[in-house]
Amino acid sequence: MQNILQVIKSKYQAQFPTSSTPPEFLIFFNDLPTNDFNTLFTSLPKQLNYFPAAVPGSFHGRLFPESSVHLVHAACAMHWLSKMPEELVDGNSPAWNKGRVHYTNAVEGVGRAYAKQFAEDMERFLSARAVEIVSGGMIVIIMAGVPHGMPYIQLPAGLMYDCMGSILMEMATQGLVSEDQVDGFNLPLYAASPEEMSDLVERNGEFSIEKMELTNPASWLKGPVDIRDWVIHMRAVLEKLFTTHFGSEIIDEFFERLVKSLSAISNQIESSYREGIQLLAVLKRK
Amino acid sequence: MQNILQVIKSKYQAQFPTSSTPPEFLIFFNDLPTNDFNTLFTSLPKQLNYFPAAVPGSFHGRLFPESSVHLVHAACAMHWLSKMPEELVDGNSPAWNKGRVHYTNAVEGVGRAYAKQFAEDMERFLSARAVEIVSGGMIVIIMAGVPHGMPYIQLPAGLMYDCMGSILMEMATQGLVSEDQVDGFNLPLYAASPEEMSDLVERNGEFSIEKMELTNPASWLKGPVDIRDWVIHMRAVLEKLFTTHFGSEIIDEFFERLVKSLSAISNQIESSYREGIQLLAVLKRK
Repeated sequence: MQNILQVIKSKYQAQFPTSSTPPEFLIFFNDLPTNDFNTLFTSLPKQLNYFPAAVPGSFHGRLFPESSVHLVHAACAMHWLSKMPEELVDGNSPAWNKGRVHYTNAVEGVGRAYAKQFAEDMERFLSARAVEIVSGGMIVIIMAGVPHGMPYIQLPAGLMYDCMGSILMEMATQGLVSEDQVDGFNLPLYAASPEEMSDLVERNGEFSIEKMELTNPASWLKGPVDIRDWVIHMRAVLEKLFTTHFGSEIIDEFFERLVKSLSAISNQIESSYREGIQLLAVLKRK
Repeated sequence: MQNILQVIKSKYQAQFPTSSTPPEFLIFFNDLPTNDFNTLFTSLPKQLNYFPAAVPGSFHGRLFPESSVHLVHAACAMHWLSKMPEELVDGNSPAWNKGRVHYTNAVEGVGRAYAKQFAEDMERFLSARAVEIVSGGMIVIIMAGVPHGMPYIQLPAGLMYDCMGSILMEMATQGLVSEDQVDGFNLPLYAASPEEMSDLVERNGEFSIEKMELTNPASWLKGPVDIRDWVIHMRAVLEKLFTTHFGSEIIDEFFERLVKSLSAISNQIESSYREGIQLLAVLKRK
């Protein structure tokens, strides 16, 4: 971030060489109120070229006063759904997600329920930011992406989520968890295609699309996948969701089995689609 | 705070009855980076009429971009000195504060060293705020106060700090702490008079004085003093300073002795000066 600001300052000074005061930046770190802001604050570098602040609250609602923000960056955040659609755990619904923990490889209704929730979340996010961002201000979103129309099982993350469901069902037959527990659990993660995101931005109507593309962020995606490393990484992100629902007793066993299951399909992972699994969206307030 | 904002909003709407959008407020809570902002965030009311944010850092330096702040309120904060003058613990200095933990009843050089540090701290505070506050913006300071020229021993807090020094010296003779430890410890608390504060504001030159007066904030100051309650309150504020320097082993004993010592001079506390022990300063950016 410091480098980006340095570039902005240099460009400003090149454009306004007679200005004696370079621009100053106030940067707000936003997360839910239960986030550990103390660790954030105490781990910031001592020398900063911006003023840091923290804002507790959901970005699906208002966070800042009207017309007070110039640039919003949502980094690996928009793919978290604000809540799980209730029909996913309703045995009478066509969106009942039995024996799975994600919409990957699930019946069509499940994916539709996820997509509907994502659309609602994006609309609330864009509406709130439209009030807060000045005209000409920008939003830069980086989130999980997927090529339009490609089943998520063709991506590495989809293979992992599919494995997770199978492992939990296997553990249910062994009495380590209950089947009801598995049916009652779904990962609140959604990957959007550029086309889908463009539709949502246009439906909202307050932002123009400056850039909308799939990128490949991670160097590990280029070579052979170190499956244990990958699982450790994902465990750091997802463990809390699993322990909250299933308890902490099964968690080591669960992730050990995940390493084994993924290792058994390593060829499939190697040949999965890994070119553009991150969505980059750059939007401008009209 | 919510009530104050409600008053501002009402006044705004009375003044601009045709405006459809009432003003919105972004409120920054500032403290050192090691402050527990998580507890702050999770204990805020769910319904707020402002947007909360936190800013980690010392208010003796810059915290916000240039001309971006309208109102600063320093509540019970300015009386904390940023550091203790080194001469207080220098046996060769006329400001050596032997056998005491505060300038109350100390040799003249000690009070002068405290006052010098406070003056430096205020100058840094006012200079930083002068850059950040818009023209016409305000600072409201509430801090420990004292009538001009009145020795601090005539105030309840002064009596307490004086007792603290005596108790520690007594504990030193009993081998519970060392005399060097006592000589090496000073409370970084300073009470300013309206005249002294006015001088510092005028010397800084960036703010006009709208109000500068001593007030009496606490209802307990009006009737008989419940000494144990008072000590519990002050222990909550000061304990960390004592345990960091003396260790936690002696802390219960120390505060028990403080209750006893203060109880023994309860008449003196009752008859001490309790009318205007809080300084209220309202300043306006020129």
